[in-house]
Amino acid sequence: MIRRTLAALLLATAAPAVAQDVATAPVLTSLDAYRAMAAGAETAPLFARELAAARKSVDAGIRAGIDVPTPKDRGGGPTHERHKANYKLIQQAGTLYRLTGERKYADYVRDLLLAYAKLYPTLANHPAASDQVPGRLFWQSLNDSVWLVHAIQGYDAVRVDLTAAERKTIDEQVFRRLAAFLTSEARTFDRIHNHSTWANAGVGMAGYVLRDPVLVEQALKGSDRSGKVGFLRQLDLLFSPDGYYAEGPYYQRYALQPFVVFAQAIQANEPGRKIFAYRDGIVLKAIRTAIQTSYGGYFFPINDAMPDKSLKTEELYQGVAIGYAATRDPGLLGIAKWQNKVALSPQGFAVARDIAAGKAKPFAFASTLLRDGPQGKDGALAILRSGPQEHAQVVVAKNTAQGMGHGHFDKLNWLLYDNGQAVVTDYGAARFLNIEAKDGGRYLPENDSWAKQTVAHNTLVVNETSHFDAKLKRAEAVAPTQLAFVGEGPLRFSIGEMAGAYPGVTFRRALVQVDMGKNAPLVLDLMTVKNAGKATYDLPLHFAGHIIDTDVKLASNVTTRPVLGKANGYQHLWVDATGQLANGQGRVTWINQGRFYSYRMATPGAQLIVAESGANDPRFNLRREPVLIQRLSGAGDAAFLSLLEPHGRYNAATETTTGSRSGVAGLTLTETTGARVATITLTGGKTILIAIATDTTAGKAHSVTVNGRKLDWSGPVGRFDGTAQ
Amino acid sequence: MIRRTLAALLLATAAPAVAQDVATAPVLTSLDAYRAMAAGAETAPLFARELAAARKSVDAGIRAGIDVPTPKDRGGGPTHERHKANYKLIQQAGTLYRLTGERKYADYVRDLLLAYAKLYPTLANHPAASDQVPGRLFWQSLNDSVWLVHAIQGYDAVRVDLTAAERKTIDEQVFRRLAAFLTSEARTFDRIHNHSTWANAGVGMAGYVLRDPVLVEQALKGSDRSGKVGFLRQLDLLFSPDGYYAEGPYYQRYALQPFVVFAQAIQANEPGRKIFAYRDGIVLKAIRTAIQTSYGGYFFPINDAMPDKSLKTEELYQGVAIGYAATRDPGLLGIAKWQNKVALSPQGFAVARDIAAGKAKPFAFASTLLRDGPQGKDGALAILRSGPQEHAQVVVAKNTAQGMGHGHFDKLNWLLYDNGQAVVTDYGAARFLNIEAKDGGRYLPENDSWAKQTVAHNTLVVNETSHFDAKLKRAEAVAPTQLAFVGEGPLRFSIGEMAGAYPGVTFRRALVQVDMGKNAPLVLDLMTVKNAGKATYDLPLHFAGHIIDTDVKLASNVTTRPVLGKANGYQHLWVDATGQLANGQGRVTWINQGRFYSYRMATPGAQLIVAESGANDPRFNLRREPVLIQRLSGAGDAAFLSLLEPHGRYNAATETTTGSRSGVAGLTLTETTGARVATITLTGGKTILIAIATDTTAGKAHSVTVNGRKLDWSGPVGRFDGTAQ
Repeated sequence: MIRRTLAALLLATAAPAVAQDVATAPVLTSLDAYRAMAAGAETAPLFARELAAARKSVDAGIRAGIDVPTPKDRGGGPTHERHKANYKLIQQAGTLYRLTGERKYADYVRDLLLAYAKLYPTLANHPAASDQVPGRLFWQSLNDSVWLVHAIQGYDAVRVDLTAAERKTIDEQVFRRLAAFLTSEARTFDRIHNHSTWANAGVGMAGYVLRDPVLVEQALKGSDRSGKVGFLRQLDLLFSPDGYYAEGPYYQRYALQPFVVFAQAIQANEPGRKIFAYRDGIVLKAIRTAIQTSYGGYFFPINDAMPDKSLKTEELYQGVAIGYAATRDPGLLGIAKWQNKVALSPQGFAVARDIAAGKAKPFAFASTLLRDGPQGKDGALAILRSGPQEHAQVVVAKNTAQGMGHGHFDKLNWLLYDNGQAVVTDYGAARFLNIEAKDGGRYLPENDSWAKQTVAHNTLVVNETSHFDAKLKRAEAVAPTQLAFVGEGPLRFSIGEMAGAYPGVTFRRALVQVDMGKNAPLVLDLMTVKNAGKATYDLPLHFAGHIIDTDVKLASNVTTRPVLGKANGYQHLWVDATGQLANGQGRVTWINQGRFYSYRMATPGAQLIVAESGANDPRFNLRREPVLIQRLSGAGDAAFLSLLEPHGRYNAATETTTGSRSGVAGLTLTETTGARVATITLTGGKTILIAIATDTTAGKAHSVTVNGRKLDWSGPVGRFDGTAQ
Repeated sequence: MIRRTLAALLLATAAPAVAQDVATAPVLTSLDAYRAMAAGAETAPLFARELAAARKSVDAGIRAGIDVPTPKDRGGGPTHERHKANYKLIQQAGTLYRLTGERKYADYVRDLLLAYAKLYPTLANHPAASDQVPGRLFWQSLNDSVWLVHAIQGYDAVRVDLTAAERKTIDEQVFRRLAAFLTSEARTFDRIHNHSTWANAGVGMAGYVLRDPVLVEQALKGSDRSGKVGFLRQLDLLFSPDGYYAEGPYYQRYALQPFVVFAQAIQANEPGRKIFAYRDGIVLKAIRTAIQTSYGGYFFPINDAMPDKSLKTEELYQGVAIGYAATRDPGLLGIAKWQNKVALSPQGFAVARDIAAGKAKPFAFASTLLRDGPQGKDGALAILRSGPQEHAQVVVAKNTAQGMGHGHFDKLNWLLYDNGQAVVTDYGAARFLNIEAKDGGRYLPENDSWAKQTVAHNTLVVNETSHFDAKLKRAEAVAPTQLAFVGEGPLRFSIGEMAGAYPGVTFRRALVQVDMGKNAPLVLDLMTVKNAGKATYDLPLHFAGHIIDTDVKLASNVTTRPVLGKANGYQHLWVDATGQLANGQGRVTWINQGRFYSYRMATPGAQLIVAESGANDPRFNLRREPVLIQRLSGAGDAAFLSLLEPHGRYNAATETTTGSRSGVAGLTLTETTGARVATITLTGGKTILIAIATDTTAGKAHSVTVNGRKLDWSGPVGRFDGTAQ
């Protein structure tokens, strides 16, 4: 046979160089680990595919020749994309050299890095730098850090086989200069922020490769090596004790890569540091939490987030692989199977090999309370799941702290997933990532004017202003309180409270997932407001779907559509229609992917506003999405009671419809001493009473009488099934 | 083993009854065919799955008991859905009886039909009947016909094993009465229309089962048996010689089932009629044409169509199975594989068996000209494909005749599919099929006021009125002319012309698919208008995607959004912005599923209107979709030149963007004697000239000079690649 098998080729040619010099041999991945990968690739198809893909991409890079252009463009532009492509090629080519033994790959890494050695010393701040900290290769220094994290891995793989002169040139003109640049600017290196984590990771890995313990120490403890900042401090402060990352899942994903990659490098070079045990295993918790904060593979898009971001990203291939190497949790193999891709690393190899051996199990998705804040005292992200299966219903209560500059002003916001779809939605960020025509792919002005504002979320707005007047400093000073959480059993709930978002106003939200047997659970939402003064309250519900029907008598703006307000996001809402809730009740039904959703409001005195995002948007920067707003004007203390009911199914293929009518006939709220009781009346005449106590102490006994019926329960929430009298 | 295998069970128990009486044995499917299915089911997994599903559904029906309610509801309502479910149960239970030999299934068919025998004689016209011809079991007689087509098959399977008294009751009280009802009303039975095809098929199949040649004769030749109407005449008139169904793909799919099912019944009972050879094999052509008029499995949604309708429907399971039985075309197995489901019939069994044997091949998707009209003289549907693969680019030119009551007023409309997506779109019908809250699932008023109007399509509108003033009779009187079509090679095109849609106005459209090597083809669109008088012309382009960028200076309606007009669909358009094409040129770029599309206009004097559907829609009956309109005011003869360019890719997972900028720098139109020449200038400086001759005679030689360059070509369209001077 002319064509040798992959395994034969790898076994014959792997590990061509012997590490004559302990000061130059690979340290990020050992020669032994490379040998094991080369030997086992053929029995691990997902890994073999990555190897083949890397070969294809690097071979194309070699054919195209070295292209290291002078930096010019913003994100998404040609020079930006070129330098991104180059760091991937350097990393891949280094790995390929070790796995195939083909010298051309080492030469390619060398030639690319020598070209950078010529370019880099000539660079000052990037010409397209904007409001972010400027980089040299890229418009923001963050990207320079990312370049370093990748390129140092490729360099580590080949360094031993370069000449001493080549090593010196690349060490000094590329990596030492880059490390010096990154450590020199506190805004880049010494913040408690994911941008600094990337810088720390890159510099620390360069420290191991260049055998420079000072760089490693700076990476771990900050540029002054005091330990006030740096990687370990990031691990202390950026994650809560439950592994929740302050900025939310989208940035948790992004932040994860330098954490896991650098942790792996620390483990390989200084196992005595027991980095994976650091802070009760925070790195591994962070990996699991990233996965728990997703639905159908997509991250909950709270705060600044791109809603199209899934677990199928480089960060999570790395995270799953490194997490699996440290835990051997077969649930992580289940995630890797869904990703259908592994990292081209020793850890990715282990994942591919064990998937091939049939060891994968479904990941243990479950209701979870993720405390926020370094001490876990700054609110929480509460996740209620109806079951572990992929299409289970999931309620997310965003009772978290602000989450720094990428946080949105949406205390006690909530989301709903059902039937595999996002149903109650979060806009995420106003941004077209990496699309140059849209402001170079940066956050758009509408991210501030719309996406961050409270009205763009599903929570209370007072007097058409945002929480904390949309001021970051004020928002970071206080966090919500997670008063109660029960994630298991037939009555799952979260109760959160926020004081300080508006002067003199405290609001509290109870979200209750009410099991309905074989049907999807109902979600009851009780938002109560305490306010010594009077104000106008808006409670928006952003949803995905097409409105089918409503029982609210609407006055519609059918020939000219006005905007709802002038500022704080209201200028971006078109008003489709308004109407008064008759007898304080109203229902709107929409359809989403063949399932119906009825949103039932029982808020006496409220007006319903049906609106859509997209006003005051001459550049088409916003998506146009519908929202229902319950508005109470001139109110003091108040309560909004709402019920979201998934029902029925329309099947386009068979043209059949079932259950298109709501199964709920009525919803009312009764206020008693010590509790509010929601009465859900079903069309068949049955009733479900949900009693929500004011005192949320776990296990505390409550007793109230509603319509002559005595209700006894213990704990914050009780459920009582019966028949309407 | 306690649990016998399926095959063993089937072999042991199949064919329990011997046909003692040739007047009662099954005739729609023979006992031999049932035996073959029972014996082979286990080796044909898709078939075995259908069998198991049918068993599950019928077993549940048996447990639930007989429910034959008095008809009350419209489409989607409970009694409607019940009678629909019942006809499926009757059909499935009959088949199950033959395949399993279990008597309970025959009993169930009998009991259901005896219940109908009680109910049916008591019925008059349906109480919820509306503008359609009323049925008895259903709100329109069409559904009664469909009930008959299904139920007669289940009855045929069990009839021989009922008592003579049972047979007599069911024959006379159900099937003869139903046949008499359907044949008695010319609007139901004797129209050239798919509703009548269902009636013809049901009555004809009942004729075979009841051994009544008069019913068969009526089915084939109309209630008076003259042959002026009836099934054969439908085959003559409803399909063009190329198997295109006058109403378009959506109704072609729907119409297909009675054609193929009754044809199969005729073949089984009267092979001498050679029904599959009738009119040069028109039944088989119709099946293939239905598949050719789809993209990614979804039917082109021209005319009244639900855009969510795919090949995964009962009609196409039947069509593919019966087509395969008649042709053994392995491409049909490829479709069946995609459908992942087969009909529970001898033909479906053959499909499942041969897929299991590995005989499937990809269906031969190709550029196709489908002539319209019974003689093929009433225009055509022209389909240009860039290749046979699933994600190929497809241009559809709708140069067809009106297509009866479900036709839209959109002569020379066009659609574009690219990269697996609908890009230039057709709204389809304004309807929420089977969703009762939306007018009982019927066509909504907006179907007339918006969906059928010309401005809701991608073709010329004169003076804000629709083609033929949206009058059906006038529209049916004339059809477009397909002047030229070339579907193969690197320069594929369609040229159509329409005269008579507006008094004194003739318009012609050339759509050219210009191959660009490894990139997706460009689509050039030249719409020319001849008009002795002056008028305002609008050329809308409805598209799917989010606008990224434009070079047109727009004046935007950002705080109140007005409607575009008062009538003819214009009242349903909100105006987002307007702008003048500078130097007669303009570009709008949008993104759709990660790919960019630049629409470049070269129409001197034109205004661009950016609008969205959804105005004057207080009940939220419309989807909100964007449209670009080129407007020329006070023009006589005119030409609109446009170019649609797919380019680049944004990958959300890797956050990389390539080719987000258009590769086209300019587009101009030169008018010369005998031809118009479009000059496409690429950003690299290369040019592509597309010369479109006025004389569209095939093979005719043309020679023109443009900017001193002599262009020689033959045929309607020539292409000249060069470099800008």
